Amino acid sequence: MANKNDIIRLSKYRNALTRLMAINFAKVFPDNLADATGVSAVQVRKDFSTFDIPENQRGGYEAGELIKRLNKILDKDTIHKFIEVGAGNLGKALLRYPGFAKSGINIVACFDVDPAKCDRDAEIPVLPIEELDEFVRKHHVRFGIISTPDVAAQQVLVRMTSSGIKGILNFASIYLGWSQDCVINNVNLESEVDSVVYFVNHAEESQ
Amino acid sequence: MANKNDIIRLSKYRNALTRLMAINFAKVFPDNLADATGVSAVQVRKDFSTFDIPENQRGGYEAGELIKRLNKILDKDTIHKFIEVGAGNLGKALLRYPGFAKSGINIVACFDVDPAKCDRDAEIPVLPIEELDEFVRKHHVRFGIISTPDVAAQQVLVRMTSSGIKGILNFASIYLGWSQDCVINNVNLESEVDSVVYFVNHAEESQ
Repeated sequence: MANKNDIIRLSKYRNALTRLMAINFAKVFPDNLADATGVSAVQVRKDFSTFDIPENQRGGYEAGELIKRLNKILDKDTIHKFIEVGAGNLGKALLRYPGFAKSGINIVACFDVDPAKCDRDAEIPVLPIEELDEFVRKHHVRFGIISTPDVAAQQVLVRMTSSGIKGILNFASIYLGWSQDCVINNVNLESEVDSVVYFVNHAEESQ
Repeated sequence: MANKNDIIRLSKYRNALTRLMAINFAKVFPDNLADATGVSAVQVRKDFSTFDIPENQRGGYEAGELIKRLNKILDKDTIHKFIEVGAGNLGKALLRYPGFAKSGINIVACFDVDPAKCDRDAEIPVLPIEELDEFVRKHHVRFGIISTPDVAAQQVLVRMTSSGIKGILNFASIYLGWSQDCVINNVNLESEVDSVVYFVNHAEESQ
């Protein structure tokens, strides 16, 4: 069974491959993808082998064939409907984040507890949180984004899962645990910052 | 030598510990931090042992003592000056992201190539990219955030490192490699999305 890091790497290979194809690469080698994603060529080969993607007899992969395989594994040929909860600064920014559309994400609605933040006529409507349950069921949404303040995140999680949401990206800086019914990726920007600061400090010490 | 995941975990323990202290925990156990961050208690003990943080003889850690140690390792008692390059939607949102202030980040200026995006009088000024070098040197800034479109990221990286920036959080979805002179954390939201979608699909298959 693949773990999260395996899938994150596949996603990065696909991302890199897309760029290489945009500059007309028809054939790519493990080293190309390794260089473009910061892993080793051995790791690239191992990952593709795990997902039954064979290297050509003479080495390398046909780019067109490889992208098809990766798109199938990652389900990139489907547009996935997402809802978002929390229309504060971060929430509003995520609604406009161009990377999501590129990833096949379609945020169909946002929800907030604050009536002042609601706007039914926006391009992506911001609706009262009370309408979440009905909306999710009616539109068969399976994915959600949590961009609320930390204190609200756990409660929003319960509301999302009970309405039928199966996968969540959590941007609140509180850790939310996976349950049997729901996959959660915790995106913790604070920890990313801490780690940059740590390694800069320690690189300077070791000089 | 610690690797990135070690530091990310320490950062998460610290984050969880802060919350526990806010509800008056004076003593915490590895299990408490494990539950709050989604790792095992064995891992918590191992991490603290690696960083020479001993458990009490009767088990557990004094919260006040532990937070001091973690703050020291992660350099949380210092406010770190950051600049940001890219004042588009994501860049503007990051300028307002409350989690950064909590992490001890102070974004002192943003830079953009587009004169229409520049605003010297904003609370955090948005300045022409040509002024980056002088600004970084004058204010001794060591950290930067890249929130430009992908195509600009590599060029911005070169500009930042040559001005003296030592650590970078990269939000463009292109991978930027570490150099000897600069630590880079690539925050890839697309891959986070891909992995949520994958595990939801595969959880449903296996039911």
